[in-house]
Amino acid sequence: MRVILPEIKELLTTRKKRTIRKVVSYFEPADIAETWSEFTHDERIKLFNILDAKFAADIFEFLREDQMIELITDLPTAKMIKVLNEMSPDDRTDLFAALPTEEVEKIIPLLDTEEQKRARELLAYKDNTAGGLMTIDYITVPDSANIAHALRELRVHGKDIDFIQNIYVVDNVHRLQGIIPLKDLLTATPRTRVQKIMDSHFPNVGLDMDQEDVARIFAKYDVPSLPVLDKIGRIKGVITVDDVIDVIKEETSEDIYHFGATEVTDQYLSASPLNIAQKRVIWLIILALAGFISGSVLEHYSYLLSSIVTLSFFIPILMNTSGSAGTQAATVVVRGLATGEIRLRDIWRVVRKEFFIGILMGITAGTITALRALILQSDAGLGLTVAIAMIIAIVIATSIGGILPIVFKKLGVDPALMSGPLIATILDTTTLLIYFNITILLLYRFR
Amino acid sequence: MRVILPEIKELLTTRKKRTIRKVVSYFEPADIAETWSEFTHDERIKLFNILDAKFAADIFEFLREDQMIELITDLPTAKMIKVLNEMSPDDRTDLFAALPTEEVEKIIPLLDTEEQKRARELLAYKDNTAGGLMTIDYITVPDSANIAHALRELRVHGKDIDFIQNIYVVDNVHRLQGIIPLKDLLTATPRTRVQKIMDSHFPNVGLDMDQEDVARIFAKYDVPSLPVLDKIGRIKGVITVDDVIDVIKEETSEDIYHFGATEVTDQYLSASPLNIAQKRVIWLIILALAGFISGSVLEHYSYLLSSIVTLSFFIPILMNTSGSAGTQAATVVVRGLATGEIRLRDIWRVVRKEFFIGILMGITAGTITALRALILQSDAGLGLTVAIAMIIAIVIATSIGGILPIVFKKLGVDPALMSGPLIATILDTTTLLIYFNITILLLYRFR
Repeated sequence: MRVILPEIKELLTTRKKRTIRKVVSYFEPADIAETWSEFTHDERIKLFNILDAKFAADIFEFLREDQMIELITDLPTAKMIKVLNEMSPDDRTDLFAALPTEEVEKIIPLLDTEEQKRARELLAYKDNTAGGLMTIDYITVPDSANIAHALRELRVHGKDIDFIQNIYVVDNVHRLQGIIPLKDLLTATPRTRVQKIMDSHFPNVGLDMDQEDVARIFAKYDVPSLPVLDKIGRIKGVITVDDVIDVIKEETSEDIYHFGATEVTDQYLSASPLNIAQKRVIWLIILALAGFISGSVLEHYSYLLSSIVTLSFFIPILMNTSGSAGTQAATVVVRGLATGEIRLRDIWRVVRKEFFIGILMGITAGTITALRALILQSDAGLGLTVAIAMIIAIVIATSIGGILPIVFKKLGVDPALMSGPLIATILDTTTLLIYFNITILLLYRFR
Repeated sequence: MRVILPEIKELLTTRKKRTIRKVVSYFEPADIAETWSEFTHDERIKLFNILDAKFAADIFEFLREDQMIELITDLPTAKMIKVLNEMSPDDRTDLFAALPTEEVEKIIPLLDTEEQKRARELLAYKDNTAGGLMTIDYITVPDSANIAHALRELRVHGKDIDFIQNIYVVDNVHRLQGIIPLKDLLTATPRTRVQKIMDSHFPNVGLDMDQEDVARIFAKYDVPSLPVLDKIGRIKGVITVDDVIDVIKEETSEDIYHFGATEVTDQYLSASPLNIAQKRVIWLIILALAGFISGSVLEHYSYLLSSIVTLSFFIPILMNTSGSAGTQAATVVVRGLATGEIRLRDIWRVVRKEFFIGILMGITAGTITALRALILQSDAGLGLTVAIAMIIAIVIATSIGGILPIVFKKLGVDPALMSGPLIATILDTTTLLIYFNITILLLYRFR
């Protein structure tokens, strides 16, 4: 696409509409959408006016939200409505969700009657639920029908639907009775009853199900699409797996950002530094304030530091190692909770496991640190103190790092908010307390 | 499934094979696989012996690798071969990849001739490439064929293929010429040439393409399946989007684990603490050794700490805040690199942006910390020193946090290895150096 971009820009200065349509049609809509930012505003409007509504809608669905809104605002109304009529109803609903309500209320009455109905129906569902994810483009047949009837339905309605995997068999109140994969339809004889070849055991999702759970069900059953049912089993829509990919990416991104102690940062490159700083600074302030506590601990025990100066040399490594050990444990548990491998009731198994992991890692890190005290400071007492403090600090670090995400989840808070930096901050205080108290017990009283 | 588990276990003690087959068939294979660990070893073997090979293979594909290997080892050979013959070739290849080569070489000759050929073909491709991901179950028709011919092919070969979305049109040397969605096949007249209705612009992936790039292409084009082509354009296989979901989950998990400074930890709950500790301890040792550097910095400047004791109170908060700011920047950049939003050539834009973000956040955090020094220590000089050190430390933190993942990627190293704990450790040293040098400049010489 990029290589012929100059040619398209050149063509747009002419009146060769047919040539433009032809050249552009050689490309995938997704590829054209990808180079969208390299067109000027005028070129975009011109191009959309020239393209037929179906192809324009195909490109439109791949644009970023802000790019869509630019077109919605500046295209001639007639063209804009044509494009919106051609869009797949679920993508259109996502766009409407990004527009001001009064704008949407102005647009909807201009759509085709059928599309108006669909738009209103889909707008009633919450964005992050199965209802907000599903398309209402699917084909049903009554359970009394035969294969010939189903094939007819497919011929009539199939043209406008992007992906069709199954035909859905419903009873007289539209409750889903069974599913027929398209390929089975092709291999059956026309007079067979649909009830005979339909699969009546099928995974499905509820209309109100959270999109994260929907994604989990897709991953579990390894299916390309799932029907969405209401409380009494009527089919309301179909979710295809490509919509779920976006959900998975969105949800893991959110987890990753939270775990790095920052808010979701989309369009990093185009956002202003002030904007990004605002998303991060709240967390930084919280962490800084929490850091005052460890400062106070240091202050409280400063008499130890002034009488044994070498003590302070080991503060960074103790804080660092316990912070890292806690982050490691939290990482594994946050991810385990996200994939569903770790459940709330596993809390004690996690604590027990992290306790033993902490002992093993503590002994390793403690030995290394004690060796440093022995070699560089030639101080066996200090070595022993540091080693024991390290072991206890790391055991506490892995245990707390493992337990806190589960506690957060129990309280209904996103476990990923128990971020690496937050755990490190919490552990700074406990580590210093452990270090100074071990020093008092083992070292200070004998000096 | 869970509710009737006791009944199935009870039935397995009897000889009611038909009843067992019937009861089990009411459930989705994925649901049975999910409860697999609640059956005893003997029950599992018994159940597999009773079930017909097709249904057993369907369950088998959903089991964990260790559960598959248990069955492979302990099932009677005849039954095991029947199950393997029924498996989808791509899942079977994944299983073979987990078995010792000599074991695989013993199994393959026992498979049906056709399956032997497929198994050998797929084993030739690397696990994490498009070739390792694709299935070789797909339907092609020559470009000279008509629709009736295509429908015949579908009827003959369609039965054994799980998901069919498209028919692939090839020339006489099997180069892919176009794609026909199943639904278009159904709406066309039988005598139409396939060339007339096929779509000859189609996204595709190369045989050697890395699976991460494959996942990106799926996300970009929003398609349910993609053909895999060799260097001269011959179709070699098809990748369906449900296989890509596993890739996305696998790759983001890897990123998340690395970013938490730990190796990939699957099956956390069933792994031994020793095993998990081994995966983490390498990183902890590296971080501890790196931490010695900050210890040496402290040692070098210990004369400052003994003459101005209050200095040490601010060490934890300085280290903490800069470590957190660096982690925030790295999180956003690591994620941006993974999603493709940030490219290598954006390195200077990232640095410039993080520099300004650092100034904004540094001023905020510096002011808070200076206030603490003013209020609790009533020391304006110390407040100024800490504030300036904080601003510089945070600017360096965000800049380094943003730049290092890109440098890693440039060097061909996984950017996520520039983990939160590693950045915090690196920044500890720079932060201490900044703090002590600002102290010497602003505070020490005047006391």
